[in-house]
Amino acid sequence: MDPDEFRRIGHEVVDWIADYRARIEDFPVKSQVEPGWVRGQLGALPEQGEGFDALLADLDRVVLPGTTHWQHPGFYAYFPANASLPSVLGDLLSSGLGVQGMLWSTSPAATEVEQHLMDELVGAMGLPARFLGGGVIQDTASSAALVALLAALHRTSGGKWRQTGVDGSETVYVSSQTHSSVERAARMAGLGEQAVRSIEVDAALAMRVDDLASRIRSDVEAGRKPVMVCATIGTTGTGAVDPVREIASLCAEHGIWLHVDAAWAGPAALCPEFRGLFDGLDQADSFTANAHKWMLTAFDLTLFWTAHPDVLVDALTILPEYLRNTATESGAVVDYRDWQIPLGRRFRALKLWSVLRWYGLEGVRAHLRGHVELAALLESWVTADDNWTLVAPRSLSLLTIAHRDGDEPTKAAMDRVNAAGEAFITHTTVNGRFAIRIAIGAESTRQHHVRALWDALSA
Amino acid sequence: MDPDEFRRIGHEVVDWIADYRARIEDFPVKSQVEPGWVRGQLGALPEQGEGFDALLADLDRVVLPGTTHWQHPGFYAYFPANASLPSVLGDLLSSGLGVQGMLWSTSPAATEVEQHLMDELVGAMGLPARFLGGGVIQDTASSAALVALLAALHRTSGGKWRQTGVDGSETVYVSSQTHSSVERAARMAGLGEQAVRSIEVDAALAMRVDDLASRIRSDVEAGRKPVMVCATIGTTGTGAVDPVREIASLCAEHGIWLHVDAAWAGPAALCPEFRGLFDGLDQADSFTANAHKWMLTAFDLTLFWTAHPDVLVDALTILPEYLRNTATESGAVVDYRDWQIPLGRRFRALKLWSVLRWYGLEGVRAHLRGHVELAALLESWVTADDNWTLVAPRSLSLLTIAHRDGDEPTKAAMDRVNAAGEAFITHTTVNGRFAIRIAIGAESTRQHHVRALWDALSA
Repeated sequence: MDPDEFRRIGHEVVDWIADYRARIEDFPVKSQVEPGWVRGQLGALPEQGEGFDALLADLDRVVLPGTTHWQHPGFYAYFPANASLPSVLGDLLSSGLGVQGMLWSTSPAATEVEQHLMDELVGAMGLPARFLGGGVIQDTASSAALVALLAALHRTSGGKWRQTGVDGSETVYVSSQTHSSVERAARMAGLGEQAVRSIEVDAALAMRVDDLASRIRSDVEAGRKPVMVCATIGTTGTGAVDPVREIASLCAEHGIWLHVDAAWAGPAALCPEFRGLFDGLDQADSFTANAHKWMLTAFDLTLFWTAHPDVLVDALTILPEYLRNTATESGAVVDYRDWQIPLGRRFRALKLWSVLRWYGLEGVRAHLRGHVELAALLESWVTADDNWTLVAPRSLSLLTIAHRDGDEPTKAAMDRVNAAGEAFITHTTVNGRFAIRIAIGAESTRQHHVRALWDALSA
Repeated sequence: MDPDEFRRIGHEVVDWIADYRARIEDFPVKSQVEPGWVRGQLGALPEQGEGFDALLADLDRVVLPGTTHWQHPGFYAYFPANASLPSVLGDLLSSGLGVQGMLWSTSPAATEVEQHLMDELVGAMGLPARFLGGGVIQDTASSAALVALLAALHRTSGGKWRQTGVDGSETVYVSSQTHSSVERAARMAGLGEQAVRSIEVDAALAMRVDDLASRIRSDVEAGRKPVMVCATIGTTGTGAVDPVREIASLCAEHGIWLHVDAAWAGPAALCPEFRGLFDGLDQADSFTANAHKWMLTAFDLTLFWTAHPDVLVDALTILPEYLRNTATESGAVVDYRDWQIPLGRRFRALKLWSVLRWYGLEGVRAHLRGHVELAALLESWVTADDNWTLVAPRSLSLLTIAHRDGDEPTKAAMDRVNAAGEAFITHTTVNGRFAIRIAIGAESTRQHHVRALWDALSA
């Protein structure tokens, strides 16, 4: 495909996406296909090339029916993942440039634009100055948790971890509400699930500091080595907020790495009125927030900061001959390959840059505030209703609700709404109770969508 | 940005990329900027949004001078990474759909198109049938190696690894020519570098099976547990090929997981005449090849197959309440989140599908064969020259050469070529000798480019 063909076909592809986004409400949010249906529609790979029209036709015929429409305004499941159209174009530019940002020298702009954005966001989000120079884009919060844990293991070992590995005495602390990726990271780091302590939560589903203190104490007394605590600002289940400042004090006392996971809620730090949620972050060793959840950026783009990039780099660096270069040896540059699990890396900063410049910081704040206002409105309808109740306090734009008559009617209402196709909601359990999560966060969700969801649920 | 704005601005972005690709030869391949120059050009994040033109202007003014042009026909460094224009459009469609393929149920087509392509490629590449149903797209070969190692650890432990972690007795075998990501994977998995055995290589830089056998034997006698051998088909330094079939026999004897890394050379399996390189693959437990290196697909897209997806899934699965769903519980679907390091995942299969349909299998084969022919031509010029010599046999499209007078003139020639800007080459060391690697693999590289490179080198 030469540049002129690309120009012509590229316009068609852009138009296809524009049409798709314009008519997205015509589709049921959640795909209705049965397992195997999509595969059954697909043909063998062609020996000879074919026109791009054939692919676009298959998108219409097969892919769209098999798609759960994450950009639909009726998407309230999991956490919505905004692929705003400016971010789509930023990602297109990244693909078009086709550079590899593993080393500074393999494309200086890919590294320096990223450094610039990560430092600028420290200011815009009111993050502690200790994170300046410690920011990097990861693919997901799962990888960010793993990277944090590896740095923590290296620090706890006094820098011997990279040579000697783990010794079976290391322990990691989460709560029952912490994202499962942290337990999974402990597994991948070779600690096994046996190393993970699940700390009790209080009535608000926040980590109990007294239980954390007692588990750390008994582990230390038993000769174990506490390595990392993961505190969460905005848990996946209900949006609960762990007491970061108190947890940080405990961590400081015992030399434990504090990783703060704000995968979903993190972008709210852009708004001064929500910064109270982030109290104590100045004591954290690392912090993560997903731009691909609530900062209008197409997946995948996780913001990760650490106060100790030197530890992270020492843990993960490796320099074979074929990657040696004068810029790296000068010490004047950052090579981001040392900050992440893979070696190679896309120029992901371009899609974030596109978002922040197109919307401006005020535009992103308006996006966040609009969702919180819609959630507050829905909360007022729920609390005024005789049949439904909140099972946890509203957290920003996330509501967790249940039918007062128990799990069966709650589940029946969820299934009814999902089958109707105008909205997609998922569930969690809160203290053993089945509860519907309503995560408001699609870019195009407006009040009438939320009203329609509530009417359908409460019908 | 609404769909109509996206349509208008999207056309401009497509045109910008088309113009960039059309004039890419006007740029020096390797960016000439100094550390810090790019950052010095960038302004603060705007409070109010601005037009997309401002971003495009900064791309021209700042990003392009700070870019090393990986899509330039004069790019022979590392391994070229083709971001062919059909793959750019496929990736654009993925961003435009904006779906999250972590579970089958979160977007069935994202999973089933990927399953379909991975199975189709088993046939097209002549891979063993045991890989059918065991294919998945990873971000990079580094992650693929880590995933393979985690599955291997789980299997070796008899399924206890996920609970108990590593015990410090596990060992991993590579050669001095194996990609550094495998040693790094061992580190990340908690084994430490102490667990990695670097096996000697023969004159062709291939792993010596006798040394491997003796290292395994002495480890077993010392009570260690050999877990994984990584064999390479096409090493990074010189494109050497390890004796996979003999290594596989040893692995089978000792119950060791054999991971075969063909990150660069793997796509050559599409051509029957190159399949001899892949002998023994029917005994491998896992195999990886980068579509983003030599299969015309924009980064990131690594093909990974395992003969034991059940082991992999058991090692990595975790199912919190908020991810439970009827499709998963039916057992009728694959949830690819259990096959990889992160939880979330893009619909990456779309960019691969775009490539395979636009070019057809024959088109991709022509791409591979063209590069091999150019490398053979260059080889003929090198061998006919009095001053230059091959320091390793040509491997497909990779040549490793040095000046007969030693390291200084070799390095001087490399620096001269890179400074001139019409080509970009990198180096390695072969038996202590400084050598230039010439990896032919950019989509637009033609004979006159290779001739110009040779004229510049040998001037």
